[in-house]
Amino acid sequence: MDNADRDAGKGRRWAFSRRSIFGIGALGLAVPTLTAAVTSNGTPARAAGATRKITIYAESLGNNQYGYGLERGKATIPGPILEMYEGDTLEITLVNTTDQRLSIHPHGVDYDTTSDGSPFNGSFNAPGETRTYTWRSHEMTAAAGRRFLPGSAGYWHYHDHAMGTDHGTAGVLRGLYGALIVRRRGDILPDKQFVAVLHDTTINNRIAPDTPIFEANLGQRVEWVAIGHGNLYHTFHLHSHRWADNRTGYLEGPSDPSASIDNKDLGPGSSFGFQVLAGDGGGPGAWMYHCHVQSHSDTGMSGVFLVRNADGSMPAGAQEAIDRFKGHRHIQSDHGGHTG
Amino acid sequence: MDNADRDAGKGRRWAFSRRSIFGIGALGLAVPTLTAAVTSNGTPARAAGATRKITIYAESLGNNQYGYGLERGKATIPGPILEMYEGDTLEITLVNTTDQRLSIHPHGVDYDTTSDGSPFNGSFNAPGETRTYTWRSHEMTAAAGRRFLPGSAGYWHYHDHAMGTDHGTAGVLRGLYGALIVRRRGDILPDKQFVAVLHDTTINNRIAPDTPIFEANLGQRVEWVAIGHGNLYHTFHLHSHRWADNRTGYLEGPSDPSASIDNKDLGPGSSFGFQVLAGDGGGPGAWMYHCHVQSHSDTGMSGVFLVRNADGSMPAGAQEAIDRFKGHRHIQSDHGGHTG
Amino acid sequence: MDNADRDAGKGRRWAFSRRSIFGIGALGLAVPTLTAAVTSNGTPARAAGATRKITIYAESLGNNQYGYGLERGKATIPGPILEMYEGDTLEITLVNTTDQRLSIHPHGVDYDTTSDGSPFNGSFNAPGETRTYTWRSHEMTAAAGRRFLPGSAGYWHYHDHAMGTDHGTAGVLRGLYGALIVRRRGDILPDKQFVAVLHDTTINNRIAPDTPIFEANLGQRVEWVAIGHGNLYHTFHLHSHRWADNRTGYLEGPSDPSASIDNKDLGPGSSFGFQVLAGDGGGPGAWMYHCHVQSHSDTGMSGVFLVRNADGSMPAGAQEAIDRFKGHRHIQSDHGGHTG
Repeated sequence: MDNADRDAGKGRRWAFSRRSIFGIGALGLAVPTLTAAVTSNGTPARAAGATRKITIYAESLGNNQYGYGLERGKATIPGPILEMYEGDTLEITLVNTTDQRLSIHPHGVDYDTTSDGSPFNGSFNAPGETRTYTWRSHEMTAAAGRRFLPGSAGYWHYHDHAMGTDHGTAGVLRGLYGALIVRRRGDILPDKQFVAVLHDTTINNRIAPDTPIFEANLGQRVEWVAIGHGNLYHTFHLHSHRWADNRTGYLEGPSDPSASIDNKDLGPGSSFGFQVLAGDGGGPGAWMYHCHVQSHSDTGMSGVFLVRNADGSMPAGAQEAIDRFKGHRHIQSDHGGHTG
Repeated sequence: MDNADRDAGKGRRWAFSRRSIFGIGALGLAVPTLTAAVTSNGTPARAAGATRKITIYAESLGNNQYGYGLERGKATIPGPILEMYEGDTLEITLVNTTDQRLSIHPHGVDYDTTSDGSPFNGSFNAPGETRTYTWRSHEMTAAAGRRFLPGSAGYWHYHDHAMGTDHGTAGVLRGLYGALIVRRRGDILPDKQFVAVLHDTTINNRIAPDTPIFEANLGQRVEWVAIGHGNLYHTFHLHSHRWADNRTGYLEGPSDPSASIDNKDLGPGSSFGFQVLAGDGGGPGAWMYHCHVQSHSDTGMSGVFLVRNADGSMPAGAQEAIDRFKGHRHIQSDHGGHTG
Repeated sequence: MDNADRDAGKGRRWAFSRRSIFGIGALGLAVPTLTAAVTSNGTPARAAGATRKITIYAESLGNNQYGYGLERGKATIPGPILEMYEGDTLEITLVNTTDQRLSIHPHGVDYDTTSDGSPFNGSFNAPGETRTYTWRSHEMTAAAGRRFLPGSAGYWHYHDHAMGTDHGTAGVLRGLYGALIVRRRGDILPDKQFVAVLHDTTINNRIAPDTPIFEANLGQRVEWVAIGHGNLYHTFHLHSHRWADNRTGYLEGPSDPSASIDNKDLGPGSSFGFQVLAGDGGGPGAWMYHCHVQSHSDTGMSGVFLVRNADGSMPAGAQEAIDRFKGHRHIQSDHGGHTG
């Protein structure tokens, strides 16, 4: 763990998710460095951060599905959660093990045209090719008076931008996407992380009852990242939990004017995230999360957020609810292939 | 009127809307109580509030339309505006007078799985059945440092989650929805309240020229609640009035960074609200509100906000505008049945 | 330049865009005046501002396209950027040089029913007719306690509301739209301004590779205004730049809770704007902006933001990217006619 992480992690209660690479020390080489300072040409100088190097494998999962993974043969849909602190740099060596042109394109962070991930900028992996993409990030910087240009912190995402079309339409359709989280120093860290990609008529390229069952114990701090993809608009709804419609999902102070919501419009390419305390208000039980477009939820864009009792035991009625859910018959969609 | 209402109502200038149950004392039994404090398992304790008991009747309105009402035989589309202050509890006895499975599912508030209103949790009324649903609410609570988990305050809504499909698609289609407002102590109270549900190609299951004509006198504080439902995305536009895109629609202070808007994307399951002074800036007259999706406004998702003169008289030109509107011919939609 | 502009312009570094009329003195007659104070009937009195008079010509551009222009024979799609400071009034003499009924309807500002631009209020230009529309604006005003009603400042837009249907569907379809910016005193002024109207399957009624190539030098402060129109929902995405999801796109202070985004849902009638430093983070190069709905970007809703080197020279690789873009073949749409 490098210095940046050590400072930021003071007193944190962090449970690494299976696929999170927040503490990337074990997976790559951390090299403190300066991010590109461009003061000579008018853009702000940025604070130093840590540079982390990771390798990502883009692989075929069979059944016309593709995924990103941190180890060969371990690709998933969605891909691994990638995390940075503002100021950090991520150097990604993307290994294309497939026979398709593909790339990795991030939202939110800073990158040169050579790391754009677009055929437009000649930035992609040919079949079988290995290529490095560099993503930088920065803290907020003074713009004028008391105004600031926002830092990179946010609930972002990454995806292919080269398979099938110059916008990566086939890559996205087949599963080449994942969450990218950039944190501001001092942000509250979660105990658990869940990613729901609302994509055409699927969640994470699956339809109910094969959509994820996300589990947490009552009171655990759970971080959700919701991402939109494909051709359809969606709305993400979570039962019996709500969050602030701002950067973090919690209020920055008593006068934070942000609305509280439990349903948010989510078009392709948009993303947001928030933290909730599992069962806060409603208690333990099996809670639905779903797209609120009626024809989408009816045909399978629905999943389960299982809030266990504080000791991890199953709450009354939860198994029955899940059994009921598993017994549901939804209309098959084109994108319902299993990937795991 | 119970204590909670009395405190909150100090000096307020409140005109009860026909269907509002903000001051629920006359309609139900107010019982001060503690909301569920779950400190033993990690979620925050909540402040005490008032418990109000009401009865709602779910009824057939004929013409394949259904509604919720506070009295037998008085169901409407949308249903009554339900209101709470943060900390209050609402105990709803739902009487299902129909031959259909149905329920009531709220957004924004806290409820156990038994009050989820979903077949998934076995929470619904069989035909003819009476069942109680309990909705709790809470104030903001400290999360860490100076951060706060948002309270329940918001412009929410409620709807059926059981008729036709496990997501209540038929119930929503036929009119089983309404507004739910949770206020924070100190929120400014309105003189008038209007609810516009943008639902498939209708507003409140009606199409122009049979959509509501909402009326207020110049300068009255008018509260709008806009709700999205069904399968289509919409945008809500109000002529010559604008509001802040935050929790309340007014700015919390001079440094509130919220954008000012007069048109807002509104997908199914989303909702928002705001207050305007009637005619503020534009003066009295007949003003349009409509979905800004061109094919939707052209086929009938349009209505009239009539701002009368301050003394209640008709402003010049307003009757002519309404006559023009009433003479419009819109393409008939499937959902245009009259319900009132 | 009138007094209002002189005060607001202190120390500003302003490069007038070709079509901006921010400093309207050269184009019209500036007459300081009081905006309508309606204290006698309950709405707030407003501060005095400047009144500017301009003439706009609505013209046929051939090929079934129409545009607004500040000079006869110079109409464009989108029309000129119109700008005001809060408190200012704009008196627009609209000359209809076409054989169609049409109008001009603004978002965000204040106007009487006679300036509504809607057939509903009898406010439109018959074929060949000249008519004056008055748009007022106001600063934020105290609402109660420390709350404020928002001022008019915002990234708004204007459009026809009378051609083809009573909602101006044909006028919008054919190009009668433009950006309207209302600034708050003290807002940071940009060096460059770009307007992207996401409209059906086009950007500014064009499809790639004929969509605009917007150019700026590295570090210039660039203001984008994105507007949604038509029947489809869109999402606006800009590569390697991001902004705060609030009124201005920059943070109002370190505790501004707004999310940072680089992709925003954009339904018909909605609009937003933001400022970025060109190449901030990513450096010079050719960057894509596009609708992130995959089928929309694939069929031509994509353009180029060319960030030149600080000295205006072409960055390495940029010409190759543009050549690649120009060589793209997109599926033709109905709305791809060239207009200028």
